[in-house]
Amino acid sequence: MSPNKTNKSANAQWGGRFTGGPAEVMEQINTSIGFDRRLFAQDIAGSRAHADMLVAQGILSTEDGKAINDGLDTISREIEDEKFPFSQALEDIHMNIEARLRDLIGEPAGRLHTARSRNDQVATDFRLWVRDATDGLEEQLQALQAALIAGAETHAALIMPGFTHLQTAQPVTFGHHLLAYVEMFGRDRGRFADCRRRLNESPLGAGALAGTSFPIDRKQTATALGFDRPMANSLDAVADRDFALEFLSAAAITMTHISRLAEEIVIWCSDGFGFVRLSDAYTTGSSMMPQKRNPDAAELSRAKAGRVFGDLMTLLTVMKGLPLTYSKDMQEDKEPVFDAADSLGLALAAMAGMVGDFEPMPDAMRAAAIKGYPTATDLADWLVSVAGMPFREAHHVTGEIVKAAEARGVLLDQFPIADMQAIDGRITEDVLSVLSIDAALARRTSEGGTAPDNVRAAVAAARKRFLET
Amino acid sequence: MSPNKTNKSANAQWGGRFTGGPAEVMEQINTSIGFDRRLFAQDIAGSRAHADMLVAQGILSTEDGKAINDGLDTISREIEDEKFPFSQALEDIHMNIEARLRDLIGEPAGRLHTARSRNDQVATDFRLWVRDATDGLEEQLQALQAALIAGAETHAALIMPGFTHLQTAQPVTFGHHLLAYVEMFGRDRGRFADCRRRLNESPLGAGALAGTSFPIDRKQTATALGFDRPMANSLDAVADRDFALEFLSAAAITMTHISRLAEEIVIWCSDGFGFVRLSDAYTTGSSMMPQKRNPDAAELSRAKAGRVFGDLMTLLTVMKGLPLTYSKDMQEDKEPVFDAADSLGLALAAMAGMVGDFEPMPDAMRAAAIKGYPTATDLADWLVSVAGMPFREAHHVTGEIVKAAEARGVLLDQFPIADMQAIDGRITEDVLSVLSIDAALARRTSEGGTAPDNVRAAVAAARKRFLET
Amino acid sequence: MSPNKTNKSANAQWGGRFTGGPAEVMEQINTSIGFDRRLFAQDIAGSRAHADMLVAQGILSTEDGKAINDGLDTISREIEDEKFPFSQALEDIHMNIEARLRDLIGEPAGRLHTARSRNDQVATDFRLWVRDATDGLEEQLQALQAALIAGAETHAALIMPGFTHLQTAQPVTFGHHLLAYVEMFGRDRGRFADCRRRLNESPLGAGALAGTSFPIDRKQTATALGFDRPMANSLDAVADRDFALEFLSAAAITMTHISRLAEEIVIWCSDGFGFVRLSDAYTTGSSMMPQKRNPDAAELSRAKAGRVFGDLMTLLTVMKGLPLTYSKDMQEDKEPVFDAADSLGLALAAMAGMVGDFEPMPDAMRAAAIKGYPTATDLADWLVSVAGMPFREAHHVTGEIVKAAEARGVLLDQFPIADMQAIDGRITEDVLSVLSIDAALARRTSEGGTAPDNVRAAVAAARKRFLET
Amino acid sequence: MSPNKTNKSANAQWGGRFTGGPAEVMEQINTSIGFDRRLFAQDIAGSRAHADMLVAQGILSTEDGKAINDGLDTISREIEDEKFPFSQALEDIHMNIEARLRDLIGEPAGRLHTARSRNDQVATDFRLWVRDATDGLEEQLQALQAALIAGAETHAALIMPGFTHLQTAQPVTFGHHLLAYVEMFGRDRGRFADCRRRLNESPLGAGALAGTSFPIDRKQTATALGFDRPMANSLDAVADRDFALEFLSAAAITMTHISRLAEEIVIWCSDGFGFVRLSDAYTTGSSMMPQKRNPDAAELSRAKAGRVFGDLMTLLTVMKGLPLTYSKDMQEDKEPVFDAADSLGLALAAMAGMVGDFEPMPDAMRAAAIKGYPTATDLADWLVSVAGMPFREAHHVTGEIVKAAEARGVLLDQFPIADMQAIDGRITEDVLSVLSIDAALARRTSEGGTAPDNVRAAVAAARKRFLET
Repeated sequence: MSPNKTNKSANAQWGGRFTGGPAEVMEQINTSIGFDRRLFAQDIAGSRAHADMLVAQGILSTEDGKAINDGLDTISREIEDEKFPFSQALEDIHMNIEARLRDLIGEPAGRLHTARSRNDQVATDFRLWVRDATDGLEEQLQALQAALIAGAETHAALIMPGFTHLQTAQPVTFGHHLLAYVEMFGRDRGRFADCRRRLNESPLGAGALAGTSFPIDRKQTATALGFDRPMANSLDAVADRDFALEFLSAAAITMTHISRLAEEIVIWCSDGFGFVRLSDAYTTGSSMMPQKRNPDAAELSRAKAGRVFGDLMTLLTVMKGLPLTYSKDMQEDKEPVFDAADSLGLALAAMAGMVGDFEPMPDAMRAAAIKGYPTATDLADWLVSVAGMPFREAHHVTGEIVKAAEARGVLLDQFPIADMQAIDGRITEDVLSVLSIDAALARRTSEGGTAPDNVRAAVAAARKRFLET
Repeated sequence: MSPNKTNKSANAQWGGRFTGGPAEVMEQINTSIGFDRRLFAQDIAGSRAHADMLVAQGILSTEDGKAINDGLDTISREIEDEKFPFSQALEDIHMNIEARLRDLIGEPAGRLHTARSRNDQVATDFRLWVRDATDGLEEQLQALQAALIAGAETHAALIMPGFTHLQTAQPVTFGHHLLAYVEMFGRDRGRFADCRRRLNESPLGAGALAGTSFPIDRKQTATALGFDRPMANSLDAVADRDFALEFLSAAAITMTHISRLAEEIVIWCSDGFGFVRLSDAYTTGSSMMPQKRNPDAAELSRAKAGRVFGDLMTLLTVMKGLPLTYSKDMQEDKEPVFDAADSLGLALAAMAGMVGDFEPMPDAMRAAAIKGYPTATDLADWLVSVAGMPFREAHHVTGEIVKAAEARGVLLDQFPIADMQAIDGRITEDVLSVLSIDAALARRTSEGGTAPDNVRAAVAAARKRFLET
Repeated sequence: MSPNKTNKSANAQWGGRFTGGPAEVMEQINTSIGFDRRLFAQDIAGSRAHADMLVAQGILSTEDGKAINDGLDTISREIEDEKFPFSQALEDIHMNIEARLRDLIGEPAGRLHTARSRNDQVATDFRLWVRDATDGLEEQLQALQAALIAGAETHAALIMPGFTHLQTAQPVTFGHHLLAYVEMFGRDRGRFADCRRRLNESPLGAGALAGTSFPIDRKQTATALGFDRPMANSLDAVADRDFALEFLSAAAITMTHISRLAEEIVIWCSDGFGFVRLSDAYTTGSSMMPQKRNPDAAELSRAKAGRVFGDLMTLLTVMKGLPLTYSKDMQEDKEPVFDAADSLGLALAAMAGMVGDFEPMPDAMRAAAIKGYPTATDLADWLVSVAGMPFREAHHVTGEIVKAAEARGVLLDQFPIADMQAIDGRITEDVLSVLSIDAALARRTSEGGTAPDNVRAAVAAARKRFLET
Repeated sequence: MSPNKTNKSANAQWGGRFTGGPAEVMEQINTSIGFDRRLFAQDIAGSRAHADMLVAQGILSTEDGKAINDGLDTISREIEDEKFPFSQALEDIHMNIEARLRDLIGEPAGRLHTARSRNDQVATDFRLWVRDATDGLEEQLQALQAALIAGAETHAALIMPGFTHLQTAQPVTFGHHLLAYVEMFGRDRGRFADCRRRLNESPLGAGALAGTSFPIDRKQTATALGFDRPMANSLDAVADRDFALEFLSAAAITMTHISRLAEEIVIWCSDGFGFVRLSDAYTTGSSMMPQKRNPDAAELSRAKAGRVFGDLMTLLTVMKGLPLTYSKDMQEDKEPVFDAADSLGLALAAMAGMVGDFEPMPDAMRAAAIKGYPTATDLADWLVSVAGMPFREAHHVTGEIVKAAEARGVLLDQFPIADMQAIDGRITEDVLSVLSIDAALARRTSEGGTAPDNVRAAVAAARKRFLET
């Protein structure tokens, strides 16, 4: 096939795509059943709660209420069994379910929509979905924390170089490093929890926008659906989507954390560093180059950050400048949220898997930790605390000693004490106690510091704060 | 930033801009004093707390501690009086202050940096600044809520058309509409409060990245600075900026709300709608066209949304994929936060001003509210609740009646009852009680609905929830 | 994507989603066949070109080449007929096709990949796809221009108010207004054309990253695929995706134009303005409120801007900071491009449809154009050009006259000449010739101005510039 | 000072910021002189061209024209000498200059604005500024290409590992690697050039929005300002800002390239890789750790990508959904463009400096290139081309040989030929000619491949394509 044929058929695809006329364009741009079918469980739960309330308030007969509930049961099973006859022409999940209910139970189906509008219905469904998603993501975040804490416990004393600017700075332990991410993901959990709490108010009963004249009981439906209370203003209830934006923000921030750990895994797996080894389960290999273990899962987790940032940007832009109340623009609220939830869920699963899978290489880590005079700070601190120099002077003396050591090609703890004393007479043998990386590590006992005993205590505390809740 | 000169010199500016060699490029790209001087108060507060703790722990002498505190007093006054000699060569606010302290008090200045690093210092300063900014913005949000609530009280019963798709849907009251925004800004306040609570942990004492071997007391400095506790992990303390991302997210979401109200003001002020009138104070006029009151402040508030979204995207991108701990990339964290805080502060002030300023035009609102058969829903609801039809059938009958009324060019409450009965025999005179927009409005008594009595109660509740805290 | 099940199972879905272990997570995150099957035609075209070249260079036998071509024919038909057995386990479209080829023709299939790598193959496929997409979108843009030009011709003299700040400023014609968009979409076409030209170089032959030692002929494959030339550097060929970013940028900018026209349609259709009427084909109605014609297609087109901006943000973020050459992150390049192409294609089709469909309402436009003293500028210009005042003085005198007219509640062309002369003695009867909106319109004859004759000439010129190419 | 004081004063800063009342808020939000003063040269050039045209058309007297030109000369000098009395109250650069002109020359200043509006004036100024900026950036891009080409020439044959997934894949030369960026920046130049060409049309003469009735000559002003022609539609001329969006897109894409090279420099400078060494000029050191050369300039260049992406998102959002023509929102168009131009200019200067500065470390590069069996592909290719196997079979045999070599801990070119033959009998001694990395490199002679001779030729070609234009 010549490329011209490709061009032509591609053009046909594009240019001729909507030759079917307005009806086809409108159906394509208007229909949401392709994605909002994911709301089916929430939609059915909402309808049940609404029907039960209508019965309780005497707006619907008990029999009609029963028929509706039975019909919804059937629909629920049909969808779960993938036997539901979804129709593109019925546009969205709400109309698909309502039409099917009419098929199943006849006239009472028409009474379900009493005192309800598509506007409050969809707002309710979507809040329920986002609430479920936050619950699931919090659980996944906790699982990732659990994997990190387990690793931190095992490697509480394993020395690795701590970096700033990707340059060796001071020795830390691998456990300490993993716990840094436990803190980050802990705050991420907090953001999802706050989002959940704030969104957990019921829009149901707001009607199209103004409320209704039917004597409904919004507290009852709110309670039935697990909401804390009805939303206070009907216009706000159908017009705002800030809960979705907050969800996307929490997801985006979490993705920055994931992308950082992912970047580290890529670097740690590189030939230059060789700090960790991922098993075959989390790499893709090459039959030709057996050492090649491409850290695909880490790279893809890193890339998903872009996806989630884009999802957030999408919905911020969609909502910008929309007059109240509902505008059709808001139909574009779901796909970015679904995509972000899926992307984040996938990345969290991949990260938890990799953290549980990777094997640190202590020799490579230690060798790297020794380079670059990482205990120079300890020397300076000794000069301050033992020899009594002002910090800035100690800083200067240290610089001279390190330069001399470097010129001779030896590490600080191999540099003759006499030569140090030649540089500054206040130095004593006691200084040797701080110059090895092991000593340096052990002495970082300040709260939150990297001394192995601190790390062990931090592991216990983290377990209590994050896993026993 | 100096303006560029001409076409010719513009090229020179760009191409030749850094002809001064590496030193000049590095100074330009590296230096942050141009913007981080905004952290001066936080930097001084942090240094005081650190010095006091060093004294309490016996790491610093009482005299040195006193000298440092006095020196910092002087510096604080110098900066407030705009007499401080800021130096570009000293790069950032921290070095500027430290250098000046040395000028003022000599050697003890060199002891202030004991057991502290630039990394934990800047993280502390920035958290304090963001905390202050959230406090200020929450206060401004409350002021905007107060203005909206006051307007809602005054206009609790003022009829306006409620829109979906910018098409008249059902009558609501202007007060009800304003209260919708009170809810939105209330949730925005909640987001800033959550952000503040979560960031309110002290990084001070994390050192460069690993903690320190000095016997510092991180709880003391945390308390002195109003933090709830020290951060639990030293690497996390110097490496993360999620608090800034959360701040930016809260600001971006708030801007969607502001942009919506701003869009409405622009539309309400248009010749087509004429719903409100802004005074000269919030418009720019034209000496030629006296009716022209360009709603510049509303337009600019709307546009600031773009700015804040951009700030958020900036920092998300900067943080994506950075290996731990500190990387210089993170110096780019401050300007987007400053810009977002300024933009949001300005927009909130402008919105509060406009809300306090604008004058609704009741006749225009009422005239618009009558158009488009906005009580059709009420007719349908009557058919359901009084005549006992299923909702979907009532919906259909209503459609026929409205079509007939439209053909005759009359509103629903002017359409002869006999003609309605010809369409459906179940209709009685009682239906007239629901067909005027005033009746429709009064009957929207469901919780959160637009009936004027509801709105008045909602005003009282909002005042309690949002202004008495 | 299957819908989630219930609250309970939603948690299960999330938390337990990947309980199948690493294999399942990896498959889910790694597999791209779900979306990259859209590259099938390009992949087959690329393989044909490669095989033909291998034969021509004597690297592949003629018989093998023939077998490969025949097999690819079969595969192409199978896919077009939706009979192709896509396999998730085979990960991507390239492996799916290669595996099927082996099924069909056996051993020679294994020779097709000689001197080729997945890296140059996918880069080739994707460039071909984006090239096709630009062709299709340019065609759609031209169709939209054609609709706008046709409307501009019909309404070249139809008066409407020209707005700044959504406030009436000066009268313009509806045709003139439509032509403004013709210019915008013309520049959009230019951006797509530039993107196409710049991307039209062949990566094929770059191998994994370094080129190959086989005596391939990259010019032959480039020519066969319609590329202008081979890419000059093999690392660049497999590592960059700037062509996709440029495509997304062009799409995003086009969406700003679409969103503006869409916003105008929403406002024009509002009860307040009533400037145009959309037919049922492009609105969704309400059986209860017959005048309600929700401009859903316009709202959705406006919202798609958010989607495309998000797509651009996604890929910018993905590509940020990736070391050369190929990283798996780059697998995330396709979905945003597909989504943007689809969204833009849909929005263009909807806009072209609406522009061909909408019916202007001359009376409403004219009534609005008269409001707000839109000929004040003409009065001022007359004072300058006939009465000889400096512009700023004329501006001032005009202000006084308009204020007086407003006080009396009359339009400028109804304001007595004697009263004008009382304000400034230099005014003569001649001024009346410029004060009606029709006169004002007719006199805007400067190049690009709104005088109906200008607009008619601009229609002819636009037809030549944009439709005859 | 207690932190409470900080809080309070920060609150005062925020909450009390606009206590001066509406006037103060409006001035703060409305005024643009703080940033648009950067347009002064363009504004003066535009005014000159306009005045000259008015004289030529007989709309302005020769004397007035002369007075205006002289006055503008004076103003230009005053601004360049930083003696111009900028006034916040005069809002923007245009009013500042006009007011000063009136001070200097009196009444004729009032005639300059004849047949011109602030709307076409600012559009003209901004296009001129963006045009200048593209010229400057193109020049800087060329300078960066020159530095890369020089480096490529010097290091045309210097072996380094080529990476995919940051894993060693095949040997390439450092020169080849640098040339990949030459291609990228070449396309970036093309994007700026296209942007410049497309924006180079004159809005001047479009008036407020509709054109003018004065007999102006738009071609004359267009020519005088170096524009190719007047813009064809007056509404479009004042309402669109797509040229700024295109500029920002080109800048954002360029920043992805810069961020990639910056990331590589950070990785290359790490202790793990050690591929290059940056001099003191482009690093910040540590007086304590002499080997610490923090690649600050690279990190900041990488981070600037976030800034420019944010600028693009800002303006896309601002422009989304604005009805024609000018809205005040568009005042927010300048700062993102200024910021992106500055950020990109700075990053380009830093990159050009670093590329000219860094020193490759051949031993480290070679040692890394040998790891990971990077010539396995060459072995497979030999099996195909000499031993006649299908590629997929060759792939398999290679895998077995490499596994055996790895088990014995030797490189491929050290693995006994007899042992290879034991694995596959078709192997001959000839295979040794392809197994060293030097041989592998030399054989990558396909067009665009990494063979040193190719690279040398590519250097010559690049010089011709990019530097001699």
